[in-house]
Amino acid sequence: MPQDRVGVWLVGAKGGVATTMMTGLASLSRGAIDPVGLVTALDPFASLGLVGFDQLVVGGHDIRSGSLLDEARSMWTTSRAIRPDLIEDAADYLAAVEARLRPGTVVASGDKIRELADEAVAAHVESPRAAIDRIRNDIVAFAAAERLARVVVVNVASTEPPPSRPIPREYAELAPLLDDDTACPLPSSSLYALAAFEAGASFVNFTPSAGSTPQALQEAAERHGVPHAGCDGKTGETLLKSVLAPMFAARNLEVMSWVGHNIFGNMDGKVLDDPRNKAAKVKSKDHLLSQILGYPPQTHVSIEYIRSLGDWKTAWDHVHFRGFLGTTMTFQFTWQGCDSILAAPLVIDLVRLVERAHRAGDRGVLEWLACFFKSPINVSEQNFSKQVAMLDEWARSSSDSFRNVS
Amino acid sequence: MPQDRVGVWLVGAKGGVATTMMTGLASLSRGAIDPVGLVTALDPFASLGLVGFDQLVVGGHDIRSGSLLDEARSMWTTSRAIRPDLIEDAADYLAAVEARLRPGTVVASGDKIRELADEAVAAHVESPRAAIDRIRNDIVAFAAAERLARVVVVNVASTEPPPSRPIPREYAELAPLLDDDTACPLPSSSLYALAAFEAGASFVNFTPSAGSTPQALQEAAERHGVPHAGCDGKTGETLLKSVLAPMFAARNLEVMSWVGHNIFGNMDGKVLDDPRNKAAKVKSKDHLLSQILGYPPQTHVSIEYIRSLGDWKTAWDHVHFRGFLGTTMTFQFTWQGCDSILAAPLVIDLVRLVERAHRAGDRGVLEWLACFFKSPINVSEQNFSKQVAMLDEWARSSSDSFRNVS
Amino acid sequence: MPQDRVGVWLVGAKGGVATTMMTGLASLSRGAIDPVGLVTALDPFASLGLVGFDQLVVGGHDIRSGSLLDEARSMWTTSRAIRPDLIEDAADYLAAVEARLRPGTVVASGDKIRELADEAVAAHVESPRAAIDRIRNDIVAFAAAERLARVVVVNVASTEPPPSRPIPREYAELAPLLDDDTACPLPSSSLYALAAFEAGASFVNFTPSAGSTPQALQEAAERHGVPHAGCDGKTGETLLKSVLAPMFAARNLEVMSWVGHNIFGNMDGKVLDDPRNKAAKVKSKDHLLSQILGYPPQTHVSIEYIRSLGDWKTAWDHVHFRGFLGTTMTFQFTWQGCDSILAAPLVIDLVRLVERAHRAGDRGVLEWLACFFKSPINVSEQNFSKQVAMLDEWARSSSDSFRNVS
Amino acid sequence: MPQDRVGVWLVGAKGGVATTMMTGLASLSRGAIDPVGLVTALDPFASLGLVGFDQLVVGGHDIRSGSLLDEARSMWTTSRAIRPDLIEDAADYLAAVEARLRPGTVVASGDKIRELADEAVAAHVESPRAAIDRIRNDIVAFAAAERLARVVVVNVASTEPPPSRPIPREYAELAPLLDDDTACPLPSSSLYALAAFEAGASFVNFTPSAGSTPQALQEAAERHGVPHAGCDGKTGETLLKSVLAPMFAARNLEVMSWVGHNIFGNMDGKVLDDPRNKAAKVKSKDHLLSQILGYPPQTHVSIEYIRSLGDWKTAWDHVHFRGFLGTTMTFQFTWQGCDSILAAPLVIDLVRLVERAHRAGDRGVLEWLACFFKSPINVSEQNFSKQVAMLDEWARSSSDSFRNVS
Repeated sequence: MPQDRVGVWLVGAKGGVATTMMTGLASLSRGAIDPVGLVTALDPFASLGLVGFDQLVVGGHDIRSGSLLDEARSMWTTSRAIRPDLIEDAADYLAAVEARLRPGTVVASGDKIRELADEAVAAHVESPRAAIDRIRNDIVAFAAAERLARVVVVNVASTEPPPSRPIPREYAELAPLLDDDTACPLPSSSLYALAAFEAGASFVNFTPSAGSTPQALQEAAERHGVPHAGCDGKTGETLLKSVLAPMFAARNLEVMSWVGHNIFGNMDGKVLDDPRNKAAKVKSKDHLLSQILGYPPQTHVSIEYIRSLGDWKTAWDHVHFRGFLGTTMTFQFTWQGCDSILAAPLVIDLVRLVERAHRAGDRGVLEWLACFFKSPINVSEQNFSKQVAMLDEWARSSSDSFRNVS
Repeated sequence: MPQDRVGVWLVGAKGGVATTMMTGLASLSRGAIDPVGLVTALDPFASLGLVGFDQLVVGGHDIRSGSLLDEARSMWTTSRAIRPDLIEDAADYLAAVEARLRPGTVVASGDKIRELADEAVAAHVESPRAAIDRIRNDIVAFAAAERLARVVVVNVASTEPPPSRPIPREYAELAPLLDDDTACPLPSSSLYALAAFEAGASFVNFTPSAGSTPQALQEAAERHGVPHAGCDGKTGETLLKSVLAPMFAARNLEVMSWVGHNIFGNMDGKVLDDPRNKAAKVKSKDHLLSQILGYPPQTHVSIEYIRSLGDWKTAWDHVHFRGFLGTTMTFQFTWQGCDSILAAPLVIDLVRLVERAHRAGDRGVLEWLACFFKSPINVSEQNFSKQVAMLDEWARSSSDSFRNVS
Repeated sequence: MPQDRVGVWLVGAKGGVATTMMTGLASLSRGAIDPVGLVTALDPFASLGLVGFDQLVVGGHDIRSGSLLDEARSMWTTSRAIRPDLIEDAADYLAAVEARLRPGTVVASGDKIRELADEAVAAHVESPRAAIDRIRNDIVAFAAAERLARVVVVNVASTEPPPSRPIPREYAELAPLLDDDTACPLPSSSLYALAAFEAGASFVNFTPSAGSTPQALQEAAERHGVPHAGCDGKTGETLLKSVLAPMFAARNLEVMSWVGHNIFGNMDGKVLDDPRNKAAKVKSKDHLLSQILGYPPQTHVSIEYIRSLGDWKTAWDHVHFRGFLGTTMTFQFTWQGCDSILAAPLVIDLVRLVERAHRAGDRGVLEWLACFFKSPINVSEQNFSKQVAMLDEWARSSSDSFRNVS
Repeated sequence: MPQDRVGVWLVGAKGGVATTMMTGLASLSRGAIDPVGLVTALDPFASLGLVGFDQLVVGGHDIRSGSLLDEARSMWTTSRAIRPDLIEDAADYLAAVEARLRPGTVVASGDKIRELADEAVAAHVESPRAAIDRIRNDIVAFAAAERLARVVVVNVASTEPPPSRPIPREYAELAPLLDDDTACPLPSSSLYALAAFEAGASFVNFTPSAGSTPQALQEAAERHGVPHAGCDGKTGETLLKSVLAPMFAARNLEVMSWVGHNIFGNMDGKVLDDPRNKAAKVKSKDHLLSQILGYPPQTHVSIEYIRSLGDWKTAWDHVHFRGFLGTTMTFQFTWQGCDSILAAPLVIDLVRLVERAHRAGDRGVLEWLACFFKSPINVSEQNFSKQVAMLDEWARSSSDSFRNVS
């Protein structure tokens, strides 16, 4: 295990996923909980020298005011999703993280997200390049102050609208646009990604926002020699689609229609009330079926904000399929999962895995992380078990090389 | 494609799976339906020279009276599961098969199944060895009369009770017991398997009955140089378990309990009303979870006979699992599938694949067929996608060798 | 039982509800089916002298081309909802009805419905008054030709958009507007209602369209001395809401949110793809919860057109409620019903009951029919069991008076 | 409101329902929660002068050791069903109740329940009559010590097996058998009921056990001039059956089969693992369908003990029904309710209502309480809304008489 401390810089540090992750890290660090839900706690990852939970130092950006402890507490008071004693016992940890937070940027984040921002943050006018510089400086200062060997920047902020203008494929074409507010096609999430790369930090995009997906951003990561991964954490309904659709394909059962109806009541849900933000999310949840099945069934995905559910997301899926002799049959499921509880351990997993790759000198897109994402960058394989096999294969080969090295 | 005709000898030829398979073969042969639901109609199997639908000649044993057409019609009148025109158009095909049927044996089939038997069949007293000889002769005569290159015997009869006494592991120890009614521990299904092997036919056990699973039977297959496979076709709820449980394992989510409640109203359901017959089935549906997860969650499987459902099986499964920070969540599904419609194409697939292996000179257990079965013989892998990978790997290598040969 | 023949004049005579109703009447008339699904076949209605199934003569308007038999057959070929033999046996009946059909009007029916219309019908320009006169004449001619004692006009056409302009409350104010295409605020459904009243026919609005609900229309019915009822047949999800919500109220369980997601694939679904038409439907499905509970929970109703489902409507409802000590709980249901199969017998019931009331001299809104409707005219009671009690009370008192009379 | 204090004597005082009720009363008394889930908090009951929450004094019997606070805490630690702060704030209340508890009797309670008993309680040998006398003295002493105007005894203990021998219809025949252990056919629950009557207390049987249902017990209640009610609180799946079945009946939809599968993990579930105890429960959950529908559909009720669910009961019901033209359709629901949370407020309601009736001089069975029970004594009406109408009618007439009196 590395002796070095590693930084986790969260974009959207006051959100449910972020505070749940912090509460979890605090609990894991003092041995108060088992590492249930963490992929990296499974056997294949034991001998990889992944960074320890207590070696992680958390900081980040947010555009909202409000305390981390209050946000964490709402996972109990509103959602009944985390035991109150675990939250209270994490109070010191959360206070320490809070001292490391810096104001985010609302440049190019869309109206809906700007509405959520703290007044001072919303009022701060800056060019995209100025925002990048400011963010980069925050990350670099964080690494210096905490004497960190490496930093992983993770975007867990709310979903942005899709970019409204095309993004140049070459970084050289993109760079000059960064100085010009009105010409720059990059959304906020990509500004954070660029800032991370320029700070020598790796980047994980856990949201459906653009982040490091555009070609020019991928080029920037390569040039700065850092790895990155994304996008959109696969935590619930889409995970199930990527598990179930291959079964229909393998059995040559014809999926005629697949309807998914999602209801939940957290901040993410409120942001998705805006049709522009929702469009990005729905696309990310929907496209995989055709890829797995090899033909396009009729699909419908809806996402509705239902206040009383808090952080709990209920997905009802209805699959209508045709079998032998033309007989039609039906499969339905109901998934009652807690969004942040499902997402937070995956964020920790991604931090540990991306940091390990960074340490080993990997750069560019980490395609073997596909199983964590709804829309894995540069990967067309959507079958979950095949994606898991990619991860296992990496773990096996990394374990071998690790053993040879150490 | 081989010019030879291939025999399919069905044990339980008057059941729902058998008559659905015949109706399907009749429809496929005249191009009235697409091969939906047939795994062997998928790409990877296109270049293997599998036997054509119209090259298959069907015969079989049954202990019940009643016509095939009537049984097939009940799939419409009782279950609304097959379009009536497809059944009526298959009338000639069904009549031709009916002319090839021979009375089965009730030796060692258990009380519940004996109750269903035709009076003359139930009254026929014979030793196990005599039953085997009679069955073998029927198969040999079938092959001769129809000038068949090979015969695949498939057990699609109702589930037997598990054997009440241990079966000797060596065939040499077992053989002398076959002459003695009271000493022979073999159930009916194993008598059919032995008869198949002695007739030089391959054997597929589509039921949870013992069939060719016992060690001594496997030895017999090897000695007679024929391949075999089983047991218990994986068509619905268990298929889903083998698809979904790996997801919980891969994400390190702890399954605390998995409850499956099955209701259906066909003959199979009636037979399972007997607790002895049901025990065999429940075991076959339940054991895989521990193997996939690596620990035993609390499980419960119930199967209830609900007349009004006919051949439709509805399974409700409730999975209670624990995630990060100890938070418990729930996944439920409802599967509304038609048993015979799901099973029949898999029987055709198995006939085509086993015949292909037989033709290529394979003998003994065909372990790469694991994805078709709830309790694959000699295979501990229960993860469906890994089982599918085994099949695909066989198809790929067989395709290569086929191309080299032809 | 009356010796007289009674006319049923269907607006939307070529739709699924209409043809299912005709197939049902044909089957009932020759005793081929039991009257399952018909409320008026229950005991309380036995002694009321309701019109017999074979005394009903069906005719109607439609704007679409296409034959009734083809539409009826699609209930089998597309939806597998009616046995094909019952449809074929009704062919003569359907042909006889077809001979009585007349082209409908697209005046004020909205763009989406006009798109569905036959070219000639769509091209026919007429003022609202002219349309009313033409429709009235059709009804009068039908009654004369068939020598009918009474005619009940039933609107089973697709849902219109809500009226875009306010409708004057007094008929006197409304009347002059009928001559002016651009000034007339009445939608098609209300033109049919007026025509019915002027023809001395009673009127049933089985759809959420305006029909006879506007105050001025109610006045017209009174003046012409005919009864009417509506609106929007309560067949599935909303029926369940009106049954289940009273339970939560009676037990003082606080419904925090009630989400209903409906998917189906018939013509009605296609029309509801237009947001204007859908708005009328959703409103009709949603408003009752507040009325029953006494407070407004968060509600969401969605309706999606899923082609593969044909006439089958699946509704998934999720009710999130709070109980003692603030503990939240969940109730979910899935309703898999066939729309036309559920609606058609209620249309027959309404025809028999409204005709009975007309015969007895009732005029105006028949409020005791509330249990049949999602939005009963002039009735605020939405609790289904209390609505049923209103119907039973009417049956009891009518039965008494009937006995006294005859 | 009466100035008098009223006693609540709980049989099974250490169970989940009892401790939840106490936690609730403690919370209600100090205004910490709203009276959600309490029927008697609804309007119709406002003007009846029902006893106040803080006028209730709780005591009771139990056969188990263990503290009330520990049992109450398990509703949080095991079941996550009650907020921990509400439990901790009720600690003093629970301690005060605990000081009033007395050891119960295991006479005639069945093997399964005896297994749960504290060693000293299980070892205490006494005749039925001796047990009755001891229990009666406990109740009388409780009333005296606490200066109570009236006491309501409520049976919330685990389900007993049904009586194995017939119980004489006349009390005179029953009385002499009470002295003889081996001859007495009464189960424990009826001994408690008799003791209550002899102590001048009213009695509520919230379980499917015999309690005060036998004719001879009803006679005893009349003779002692006290009211009583039962049996088996209608809290979840059966409540829904009594709400939904009338809908199918009112619409003349033919229910072919109704399957209910219940899973839960509390003490009650453990006791129901014994088939004799389960038989009583299943019967109580199942019989109402035939009564409501007027014909017997095929029904199946199963109850399984699933540890991980704690006090949460999930019921999956599948209703297969036939509609117009013979078309079959399906309705399924999933109820995820917390047993004790649903039951506890109904116990408080029953105490308040029975005490009110007792105060007003009512004696014998209170049939207007039918809506609270699965098997209401002497009432055949099982339609929930009609049962609610009975309660409302009582409230209305009692309110009138109360107004006249005061």
